[in-house]
Amino acid sequence: MLERKLRREALRIFRAALHASDPVSAVNRRVRVTGSVLVAGNRKYPLDSFRRIFLTGAGKASAAMALAMERMLGRRITDGWVNVKYHHLAKVRRVRLHECGHPVPDEAGVEGAGRIARMMREAGPQDLVIYLGSGGGSALMPAPAPPVTLEEKQAVTRLLLASGANIHEVNAVRKHISLLKGGQLARLAQPATVLALLLSDVIGDDLDVIGSGPTAPDASTFGSARAVLEKYGLLGRAPRAVIHRIEAGLRGEIPETPKQGEKLFETVQNLVVGSNALAVEAAAAEARRLGFRPLVLSTLIEGETREVARVHAAIAREVLLSGRPAKPPVCLISGGETTVTLRGSGLGGRNQEFVLAAAIDLAGAGNVVVLSGGTDGTDGPTDAAGAVADGRTLSRAAGLRLDAAGMLANNDSYRFFEPLGDLVKTGPTNTNVMDVRLVLVGN
Amino acid sequence: MLERKLRREALRIFRAALHASDPVSAVNRRVRVTGSVLVAGNRKYPLDSFRRIFLTGAGKASAAMALAMERMLGRRITDGWVNVKYHHLAKVRRVRLHECGHPVPDEAGVEGAGRIARMMREAGPQDLVIYLGSGGGSALMPAPAPPVTLEEKQAVTRLLLASGANIHEVNAVRKHISLLKGGQLARLAQPATVLALLLSDVIGDDLDVIGSGPTAPDASTFGSARAVLEKYGLLGRAPRAVIHRIEAGLRGEIPETPKQGEKLFETVQNLVVGSNALAVEAAAAEARRLGFRPLVLSTLIEGETREVARVHAAIAREVLLSGRPAKPPVCLISGGETTVTLRGSGLGGRNQEFVLAAAIDLAGAGNVVVLSGGTDGTDGPTDAAGAVADGRTLSRAAGLRLDAAGMLANNDSYRFFEPLGDLVKTGPTNTNVMDVRLVLVGN
Repeated sequence: MLERKLRREALRIFRAALHASDPVSAVNRRVRVTGSVLVAGNRKYPLDSFRRIFLTGAGKASAAMALAMERMLGRRITDGWVNVKYHHLAKVRRVRLHECGHPVPDEAGVEGAGRIARMMREAGPQDLVIYLGSGGGSALMPAPAPPVTLEEKQAVTRLLLASGANIHEVNAVRKHISLLKGGQLARLAQPATVLALLLSDVIGDDLDVIGSGPTAPDASTFGSARAVLEKYGLLGRAPRAVIHRIEAGLRGEIPETPKQGEKLFETVQNLVVGSNALAVEAAAAEARRLGFRPLVLSTLIEGETREVARVHAAIAREVLLSGRPAKPPVCLISGGETTVTLRGSGLGGRNQEFVLAAAIDLAGAGNVVVLSGGTDGTDGPTDAAGAVADGRTLSRAAGLRLDAAGMLANNDSYRFFEPLGDLVKTGPTNTNVMDVRLVLVGN
Repeated sequence: MLERKLRREALRIFRAALHASDPVSAVNRRVRVTGSVLVAGNRKYPLDSFRRIFLTGAGKASAAMALAMERMLGRRITDGWVNVKYHHLAKVRRVRLHECGHPVPDEAGVEGAGRIARMMREAGPQDLVIYLGSGGGSALMPAPAPPVTLEEKQAVTRLLLASGANIHEVNAVRKHISLLKGGQLARLAQPATVLALLLSDVIGDDLDVIGSGPTAPDASTFGSARAVLEKYGLLGRAPRAVIHRIEAGLRGEIPETPKQGEKLFETVQNLVVGSNALAVEAAAAEARRLGFRPLVLSTLIEGETREVARVHAAIAREVLLSGRPAKPPVCLISGGETTVTLRGSGLGGRNQEFVLAAAIDLAGAGNVVVLSGGTDGTDGPTDAAGAVADGRTLSRAAGLRLDAAGMLANNDSYRFFEPLGDLVKTGPTNTNVMDVRLVLVGN
């Protein structure tokens, strides 16, 4: 059976994407120490020229990133403190992993953020600060600017989200009531040299969005923060301390977050070591190695999962029909993260739902396999990363009296794929660079 | 302004697609008479070897197709009768254009279908029948099998559609209570030679779906027709004459529709002269001529318009970001037909809504133009074929106090693009090969 081989190849390609997203291998791919020189991106850091080296950071994958750096730098590390999610640990020796609340920030997070801020203030001109940022960093390093309290910061965030504000709008406000977000951590660290290694869990890898960009220039201002609150009618409803701080900023009594082009960023490098784009590239390389023509459609895919799946299926069917947009053997690849509008009461996740919807449109097609998986290994509230299907999946399902259309309508993709044995399970990977979708068309 | 040039080029590419879909030029592209030989597809028809040549057909574009054939064959045409929609005429001399009801069939249609059936019965072994089929042919050539009446045929069609039956299911029933659909016209015409020229308005160009396939083998049976009625619980509710005919068919008292492989199809050629795929190919050729790398994503695109648009925008943004799936200058092309779930009370059509949704996701991007248009020239209940936009459209709209997101939510794309002067108007084209979508990325 051709499909059996295609399924094995799809799984191998997905595993290659996972490997590239693993925090330790992601750091090792982009950073290395040769002799006494640390090479990261296109910059070299002569380690002997630094008096002290501080390791810090925040995020769900940052413990594993710290482990990778500790293996590289060993005793060169002067001190280290990284805020991580409860139980998201790694076997480090020289770096203190501080467990905090996520997705809801807690006082442990505030305390850890305070420790990080002190370390940054301590860093001097001959010091190197290595910041390890990953998804969840925003909640794991909460530093509300007094007199704003953590509760007030959370309250305004909730108000904004409930009003339909997008992530950029929420961040414009949050950065302006915080002491570390929006490039302020980098400013605290100056005049030290700062190297930020980032594992991106956001579409487009915008540096100022990943973990609210503590080391990146901020494009928003006190003015835009106020405009957002005004747009959603929250000037009267947001906590008073929040409004007071923003108005003080507008009067020039509080410094703005650092902006693009400011001198301080000359000694700061932000380097994305892991991202959806890098995972997709690794998948494309593995597909090519296996003899497929890789066609990366986009790493920026958003939207309603089942509709996105239909477009992928239509492209695969065109490959079969006319050899467009590329001749088989083809591996269509896309990344990003879709959404699911829950209509039913079933069990599933966006990756499993993607595969179910695609399988419906690919029913009967020969020589096609579709796989979608979350790089964090947990798709929705399930123990699967995703699922895999082919043109025969629907008829096999019918044999088991599984109603594909009905189960899709009920968001019940897990219970569709489980009896078929077509769930893709990896276990939690402790990383997250969103999803990878594959459609293989053999020849 | 680069966008101004890109917009002009997008319009030229769309016009090339329209030209390929024009019934007269579509026929002329695929059929020609050299000396006394008619060449169509890969077959030759020596005209002098035929005693008589009959022209017939049904469809909204079939009058224009008849004009093209009349110009080619002139006085060689013995007799001609084509059922067309009211006012969908052309200046023919030798062919009788018979106006009938569409989309609701009427008695004029039944009368015309009877005339066509008589002509087919009259055709003998030395005769050539040229059938001109196009969108709407199913309603325009109604031939209910007695004792089923036109009203009863329409009643069961309505019941099926209201029950959620898909087009294949509806057709399985309709073909088995009809005298011409499902290959039966070709059977009536035998032993004459039959050349069917088809302008396809359906996704995938299935010959048995275009105008219900009067000249194509039918995959459905009396058994599948009964199964469809049973599936939707209509065995007790459908008109009794319908059930009686299907049961008589199951008992073998009425012949089945002709099937694939039957001898009669040896003298039948079904040739698609116009289709979405051919329009898309013409667009790709024009894009290449203008210096773009054409990338045909799929001609089989279906699904919710705004979500399909987001995927197109994500692919265009990836082209800008990383030169994938192809390096600029790129012209992404897709075909097929999407749907719009009406949520608001605005004015628009699927093509205008596509462009509005894409413009939102492409806001701020430089050097990108998106155009979507219906090849029939009328997008939804509007006088526009579609619309065109670029990365500046949203800021221009904001200047006119047009709220893109709000108008998309209200399905009000026409009123968004009209004040911007960005509607694409062609006037009715009297053809339909669904939609063509273009996203141009310059370099």
